[in-house]
Amino acid sequence: MSDYVVAVDVGGTSMKGGIVTRSGEVAATGRRPTGREGGPAAVVATIRSFVGDLAARGEEILGAGPAAVGIAVPGLVDDATATALYSANLGWRDVPAADFVPLDVPALLGHDVRTGGLAESVLGAGREISDFLFLPIGTGIAGAMIIGGEPYGGTSGWGGEIGHIPVLPGGEACACGQIGCLETYASASAVGRRYSARAASPATAEQVAALTAAGDPVAAEVWDEAVEALSLALATYTLLLDPSAIVLGGGLAEAGSLLSDPLAKRLAERLAFRAAPPLRRAVLGVDAGMLGASLLGWRAAGFPHAGASWSPDVPKTPTVS
Amino acid sequence: MSDYVVAVDVGGTSMKGGIVTRSGEVAATGRRPTGREGGPAAVVATIRSFVGDLAARGEEILGAGPAAVGIAVPGLVDDATATALYSANLGWRDVPAADFVPLDVPALLGHDVRTGGLAESVLGAGREISDFLFLPIGTGIAGAMIIGGEPYGGTSGWGGEIGHIPVLPGGEACACGQIGCLETYASASAVGRRYSARAASPATAEQVAALTAAGDPVAAEVWDEAVEALSLALATYTLLLDPSAIVLGGGLAEAGSLLSDPLAKRLAERLAFRAAPPLRRAVLGVDAGMLGASLLGWRAAGFPHAGASWSPDVPKTPTVS
Repeated sequence: MSDYVVAVDVGGTSMKGGIVTRSGEVAATGRRPTGREGGPAAVVATIRSFVGDLAARGEEILGAGPAAVGIAVPGLVDDATATALYSANLGWRDVPAADFVPLDVPALLGHDVRTGGLAESVLGAGREISDFLFLPIGTGIAGAMIIGGEPYGGTSGWGGEIGHIPVLPGGEACACGQIGCLETYASASAVGRRYSARAASPATAEQVAALTAAGDPVAAEVWDEAVEALSLALATYTLLLDPSAIVLGGGLAEAGSLLSDPLAKRLAERLAFRAAPPLRRAVLGVDAGMLGASLLGWRAAGFPHAGASWSPDVPKTPTVS
Repeated sequence: MSDYVVAVDVGGTSMKGGIVTRSGEVAATGRRPTGREGGPAAVVATIRSFVGDLAARGEEILGAGPAAVGIAVPGLVDDATATALYSANLGWRDVPAADFVPLDVPALLGHDVRTGGLAESVLGAGREISDFLFLPIGTGIAGAMIIGGEPYGGTSGWGGEIGHIPVLPGGEACACGQIGCLETYASASAVGRRYSARAASPATAEQVAALTAAGDPVAAEVWDEAVEALSLALATYTLLLDPSAIVLGGGLAEAGSLLSDPLAKRLAERLAFRAAPPLRRAVLGVDAGMLGASLLGWRAAGFPHAGASWSPDVPKTPTVS
């Protein structure tokens, strides 16, 4: 039995891979563009060759092929059949896990955000709790609802779309075609875009955060509106799902207490008859998806409890590109 | 082994009891006031004596004492310890299941709405699906989230409070102390209250529905606002939980297509990138809680799969009062 799995986290423009041992050591990592400009078939081929290269690197370092492969992908995933059903971003439809794997080993696919949530649950900020929301706030906003220790994707895999709940129903149009979605106020791109429009000067969310901290009134207004929209979404999530905690991740959470302090205050104010759950920072950062994919790999290899004894620290390791 | 359980559904002002056999026959039913004006200890004693009287009636009809007891109660319930933790309405705190039962038989407690949802799941509108929302719309609004075939109450039993999510955050104050809650627009009492305030003439929700159907403009406006608030809450639920269906119950659902037609239309309009789940009518009506309590009773007796072969029809049966 090989003592490692190949794990790949596929994003819109690039993907991150890792070779992860049964004790949780990340023996190598790598990054590669998805090449989505080449179309869906080329993306599948690129992932397949990345998996093959990671396996070759594993054989070189560890003396054997991988025990299994775990892959996190965006879009819609059918966990039961391990099929990547659909991705708006990458254009594919109905790709079975085997198409991503040029080796005769078991493989599991997972939804990207839910796979990150699985990693935070087993290895990260949710390690000792079983019911929480993992909310990465980046270019977009989607959540992983962890219920009974496992990510829950709903009936058809479309669950967790907290970025598109109508927090301000008479508000701004979202790119998705709906009105007043959380994402259109509070994603990192929305914060940058909304500031740039008002200040007539382009800025990233990180810059808006810095300007807010420095007292810039336009930045503070945009930041406040993002916090307000987030507080409404989190009040709704709390009243419905009654989580133990809310784990904030992604680019916007890098702002630390500039985000979490007013958000915790606003959330508590929105709730009259129950306490607010604590807000926590995600701990795995951009590695959450790859580490979650490694947990899927170990599940595919027949070790469903892999991760329980791992250290959540991700060591600095050699890179395969 | 006795072949029946005693089931009691405790409401704010009255409670409903039943004697339910292992094959799902309702051999007797009864109703009794909770007597909440006497204080929490008196309510517990009243429930206890109702359970005793139902057991005596069972012995009379079926020749033996009950196998177990199942009780649905309002407020906060700890499933793990079978304790009624708190009810604002009935005033109790930390009442163990055994205090409700004057017999030496196993007993289980459940939250009232979730126990009704369990009944709709096993016997009713959700019989062949495993993930849905049971939404009884009555004096108040709370939901039972059915996940993987079982009601999910969240980390601390406070889940499902869809009646208090902020659907219109700049809107009206709710009696709960929050702003813009679904319940303040769309419960049966809210519909009656809001019409009465505008028309300066008192009316129940049932009367407002009739007036709306007859073309009364004030009633139609109030009704439309209730539908709008519901469509926002159900869009949010759908985007987060991705249910197979939404099962509408309670007094307001009695309006049938006057509610469900515009609600289905408005819900579909709120969703841009995914389909709306179908709306269904609950089928167990006011018996849902008692039937769910009987399923809890059979679980307490060691038959966790009771109900799978039952007929969902509730026969007309003799009454214990």
